[in-house]
Amino acid sequence: MLRRKFMFMLTGKNYIGEYLYGLNNYTFAVSLEIDNSKTTYNFHEASSAEIDKAVTLAAQCFHAYRNTSTFSKIFFLESLAEAIAQSKELLVKVAMQETFLPQVRLEGEVQRTINQIKLFTSLLKDGAWVRSIIDTAQPDRKPLPKADIRQMQVPIGPVAVFGASNFPFAFSVAGGDTIAALAAGCPVVYKAHHAHPATSELVAKVIVDTAAKCKMPTGVFALLQGKTNACSIALVTHPLIKAVAFTGSFKGGRALFDAAAKRDEPIPVYAEMGSVNPIFLLPGCLQKNAASVAEKLAASNLQNAGQFCTNPGLVFSVRSTHTENFLSSFANVIKNSNAEHMLSENICNNYNASIRSLLVNESAKLRSYGKEINSDNAVAHMFQTDAKTFLANKELWHEVFGPASIHIVADDAKELLMLAKSLQGQLTASIWADEEDMELAKDLATILELKAGRVIMNNVPTGVEVTHAMVHGGPYPATTDGRTTSVGSAAIYRFTRPVCYQNFTDQLLPDALKNSNPLNIPRFVNGKVSDEKIE
Amino acid sequence: MLRRKFMFMLTGKNYIGEYLYGLNNYTFAVSLEIDNSKTTYNFHEASSAEIDKAVTLAAQCFHAYRNTSTFSKIFFLESLAEAIAQSKELLVKVAMQETFLPQVRLEGEVQRTINQIKLFTSLLKDGAWVRSIIDTAQPDRKPLPKADIRQMQVPIGPVAVFGASNFPFAFSVAGGDTIAALAAGCPVVYKAHHAHPATSELVAKVIVDTAAKCKMPTGVFALLQGKTNACSIALVTHPLIKAVAFTGSFKGGRALFDAAAKRDEPIPVYAEMGSVNPIFLLPGCLQKNAASVAEKLAASNLQNAGQFCTNPGLVFSVRSTHTENFLSSFANVIKNSNAEHMLSENICNNYNASIRSLLVNESAKLRSYGKEINSDNAVAHMFQTDAKTFLANKELWHEVFGPASIHIVADDAKELLMLAKSLQGQLTASIWADEEDMELAKDLATILELKAGRVIMNNVPTGVEVTHAMVHGGPYPATTDGRTTSVGSAAIYRFTRPVCYQNFTDQLLPDALKNSNPLNIPRFVNGKVSDEKIE
Repeated sequence: MLRRKFMFMLTGKNYIGEYLYGLNNYTFAVSLEIDNSKTTYNFHEASSAEIDKAVTLAAQCFHAYRNTSTFSKIFFLESLAEAIAQSKELLVKVAMQETFLPQVRLEGEVQRTINQIKLFTSLLKDGAWVRSIIDTAQPDRKPLPKADIRQMQVPIGPVAVFGASNFPFAFSVAGGDTIAALAAGCPVVYKAHHAHPATSELVAKVIVDTAAKCKMPTGVFALLQGKTNACSIALVTHPLIKAVAFTGSFKGGRALFDAAAKRDEPIPVYAEMGSVNPIFLLPGCLQKNAASVAEKLAASNLQNAGQFCTNPGLVFSVRSTHTENFLSSFANVIKNSNAEHMLSENICNNYNASIRSLLVNESAKLRSYGKEINSDNAVAHMFQTDAKTFLANKELWHEVFGPASIHIVADDAKELLMLAKSLQGQLTASIWADEEDMELAKDLATILELKAGRVIMNNVPTGVEVTHAMVHGGPYPATTDGRTTSVGSAAIYRFTRPVCYQNFTDQLLPDALKNSNPLNIPRFVNGKVSDEKIE
Repeated sequence: MLRRKFMFMLTGKNYIGEYLYGLNNYTFAVSLEIDNSKTTYNFHEASSAEIDKAVTLAAQCFHAYRNTSTFSKIFFLESLAEAIAQSKELLVKVAMQETFLPQVRLEGEVQRTINQIKLFTSLLKDGAWVRSIIDTAQPDRKPLPKADIRQMQVPIGPVAVFGASNFPFAFSVAGGDTIAALAAGCPVVYKAHHAHPATSELVAKVIVDTAAKCKMPTGVFALLQGKTNACSIALVTHPLIKAVAFTGSFKGGRALFDAAAKRDEPIPVYAEMGSVNPIFLLPGCLQKNAASVAEKLAASNLQNAGQFCTNPGLVFSVRSTHTENFLSSFANVIKNSNAEHMLSENICNNYNASIRSLLVNESAKLRSYGKEINSDNAVAHMFQTDAKTFLANKELWHEVFGPASIHIVADDAKELLMLAKSLQGQLTASIWADEEDMELAKDLATILELKAGRVIMNNVPTGVEVTHAMVHGGPYPATTDGRTTSVGSAAIYRFTRPVCYQNFTDQLLPDALKNSNPLNIPRFVNGKVSDEKIE
């Protein structure tokens, strides 16, 4: 039963409007086993004509989609969450084969994807997200009367979303960026990651079917397959695309950013490009908890072969016997760790190359490494160095995507602060502190809040909570735009811009700005938050 | 007395930290008359070394300045407003000579500058601008506990601000961008417009003196003089600059944007580059008010030689006898208008060149022009064409900076809507409508809210209100970043980014996020607005 459904569903084509397109002769293959037999599926990279078709349809339906009632958008997104839940078994089965991620993790990720959708529907239900700001008229003001002015957020237009290799669901087809854009009122042209095209097609089919069932305008979502850079650049430089969201490598993100900046009409690019996620272990904390902190951090470092953009890659501490205890405990966990299959051969090759260059480079010493099962898998590595060597060798500052960590032992607290100041932009920065560390922790926090999107105390950085207050972003080179987040409800503002209405008759104002406050939302009226009507 | 003070104050040098620098041999001269005798002042363009010095000092004082108490920042800005008010007479006297703008206008602009400062101090006093978002912990959540996460806006670092030629006060040294950045907690390196270097120096001296008196850290504000593009580019590409704000020409804004996008670390560029500010006159409105609308719009078009980025340059209507009445009335005002001196010879030459190319181009016919006083002054021009010709001739779509307007008469309402859809990004778009026009007005508003930062009904676009709800911005090419505004309190978000704090002990959290809500501000707590303490 599963097989027939699956065979029926998997086409290797691009989902554009009501049709499937596979015009391009350039294809790439994926072998999948369902019901004990392996089948090879060919995926058609989207051609220029198909990219143009998808974007044009998205632009054509923008007016209709954004003017769809909030109720309809909520119904669409809630139906989507339900449909994804119903397809969970098949989705996880295929994703396991494409990503080598374990079943429990992928099941959790599907649930996370569903929770993300629900966070955005709760935002739409609440209604306040449009940031309604109202300054009423003062017709008698001297020397000139003051006009009534009302501001709110409006969607920016069709957007391009690029999925991540390491999160086939939560940062992919129906992931945070897609849902944030759809919630904002923007049609989405989604470019699948070539590492999991089958999973992408299956999720895309769920979206497209749900959109049709919910009578969303044709073109509100499209799936494009593709493996070449040219395909991605063609999408980003299409004149009708108004913003780009991307999760992936520094090289990939920067290439899209550069292409977008050179357009006749430059557009925002929200590229989340990873991070080394520095950890600062303060003396008091290590004195009491060296072993347990080592266990927690090593587990975070090793989880899913370290393939998280929030993986703790750099660990800073101050030289002491307690620090040595921490390092020994950490080394011990690494030593006993099993090698794990990575997302793709390419990623594994990159990881091994990074490890090799660290081994050749004498600026950090190999302190421990994990068990080798076979050469295809990623073996964990732990390196150690001192502050001065670290500061002098920039090759130690780069992200190693995988189960690696570099431990930098400073001579004293002053050197620790200097290390913090030397950091580039990060997604996260963490402080592990005990009560007696509070003074140093405060100094560190003051530095780190300028370096990272999220500053953490006594928690591991992996596991990004999907909530209103989350910031999954940060200064360059963690992202190309540190002013937003890709996780949490504030991600909706990636795809909106403010507009104000001056001297409008009430009947022509959007509901969020009408005198009667029909949405019953809190608004910023003449400088104060209020949910009252305006007389 | 005025003269001595003035002579003493005007040095032609760059204000960097506690010192005046004029290291560069490249200077440019301005002649000014105070007390009946004309004196020539030479202004030293900032050298690379001076730019580096100013930016480095700004970066060095960033930590100290942002951690200055809100109370101190308010005291600084309020003292600045007072000091500007006290220098008003001298400032206006010098600005009149540098800009040729009339005294009343400049006095109003100084007041506007003061009002802007007060809007930002009111924002700081209120405290809610930091957008405090709090999601409290759920230690018992299954399968994993939920951590406490709290988000707020923090300043991004030292910023570069470029002043406008047409607003020597409100969009210049102590203008909206400078004050928004200082309010946010960002040091400012200000690049003066070479068209009014003396006015710039005088205002800079007021800022620097006030900063010193209020014990702000050295480096919080610097003034750089300069005339060449190289000087501007050197500032924008300095690695320690974190954002750029600019008001000026399309060419200038795009050049800064391109330079910033090519940096190793790309940074946001908020360039406001002008607009043609389309006006849509609906049939019912013209039937009743053709003459009065013509008078208001022509006055807006002619004000200060049309040198406003919100100047109404394109006027769309539907063919009828009432429209013809409007056009005749408008033509009559233009015909009786006096030529006015423009801000600079360069601007006047550009205006005349644009007019000449419109006259040579046969796609719009000259309908009326103003009185010529002498060839140095800008003579108002009114052109007319039909919708099809307009749509086919893109040279009619560009901003003409000065007292010119092109009137496009459509055959019917459908064509009017098509014209609206054809527009590029704008700062403003206006609808003049009577009660019977409401259906067409609604259709137009739905189109125009995607084209402009501000949509206006039955008001002229010139006169940008300084208030919370204002959006002075809009899609490209009106600006390089339509997600923000350069006027109004929301401009503060140009210079901030969100950061979140996970699992922080209360004592280390910023006041805006502490459990006790010591600032007594409304916060978004677990999905609802609340000013309560958190238990």
